[in-house]
Amino acid sequence: METDRLKQVIRRNYNADSHRLENTAEHSWQITLMALSLAEHSDETIDTFKVLKMLLIHDLVEIDAGDTYLYGEDDTGEKEKKELAAAQRIFGILPADQQQAYQQLWEEFEAIGSPEARFAKAIDRLMPILNNYYSDGRSWKENGISREQVIRKCRGINDGSEALWEFALGIINQAQEKGYLR
Amino acid sequence: METDRLKQVIRRNYNADSHRLENTAEHSWQITLMALSLAEHSDETIDTFKVLKMLLIHDLVEIDAGDTYLYGEDDTGEKEKKELAAAQRIFGILPADQQQAYQQLWEEFEAIGSPEARFAKAIDRLMPILNNYYSDGRSWKENGISREQVIRKCRGINDGSEALWEFALGIINQAQEKGYLR
Repeated sequence: METDRLKQVIRRNYNADSHRLENTAEHSWQITLMALSLAEHSDETIDTFKVLKMLLIHDLVEIDAGDTYLYGEDDTGEKEKKELAAAQRIFGILPADQQQAYQQLWEEFEAIGSPEARFAKAIDRLMPILNNYYSDGRSWKENGISREQVIRKCRGINDGSEALWEFALGIINQAQEKGYLR
Repeated sequence: METDRLKQVIRRNYNADSHRLENTAEHSWQITLMALSLAEHSDETIDTFKVLKMLLIHDLVEIDAGDTYLYGEDDTGEKEKKELAAAQRIFGILPADQQQAYQQLWEEFEAIGSPEARFAKAIDRLMPILNNYYSDGRSWKENGISREQVIRKCRGINDGSEALWEFALGIINQAQEKGYLR
């Protein structure tokens, strides 16, 4: 039942189709399915099952810590502390063996410390680019985001998949041409 | 991008916490994670990876066919026709190998034709019982649902997991005691 609360965590980007702000539960579904569908584009050999597990749980900490805006002011230390406490409380609801397994998956994702984490992180960065682009850049425009900011924050896609980064760059360039990005 | 539209398909039950109606994208995330966490309760040996894939895609057909209310008037033939056409259009967006894989997973789920499908279906039935119960039975009360209806529509949980069905029955009985069910 605890997972139900993730449906109330509101992100800063709009859904492509509905043009309402996305919640983290539906985001988690969309990128988990995206990872399954695009797994062949990982540059490294990956265990796709592990990627799915990682993405299903990757944002559960937001139940306590809230969504952190990718292009917001950074206070990484404070964010990390809040998310670690959240992981301990939320995964702590589970039996010890599952707690440990989920905690480990989450830490690996956060540290981008494996081929699976690199691909999962690439997918987590790619989807919002698409949702921003297909909602006419609304969130980027509202927040005055520049092409350089998107590239700086999202170039990690390239560590998971060169092909997906090339694709993302094409979208980013089109977004700039359309005036969605400064 | 097509998957984004599932965020706009609204189900008939309320979320437990927010007391707004649930959308099918967030439902899909919640039950996929639930299946991962409860996989040990399957009565048959299952490939959990396959269960996750099945649940990630199981409701994509609702993009075209809409959500069918579990306790609604049945026109199963019409529903099946609409959902099959939806599967063909939506999975047809994918390359042929993926189209075939997703179509097969979806058909297996619909036919409840394997241990994985039995467990996936059990999870798909169990979660709404919990969300209905923890939103004070609001949707059940609004639609005048009886204990017998819930048992008739959900007893298939028992085909996937006796333990989860026993648990569900406990919740259903409490729901009746609290006046959530006729």
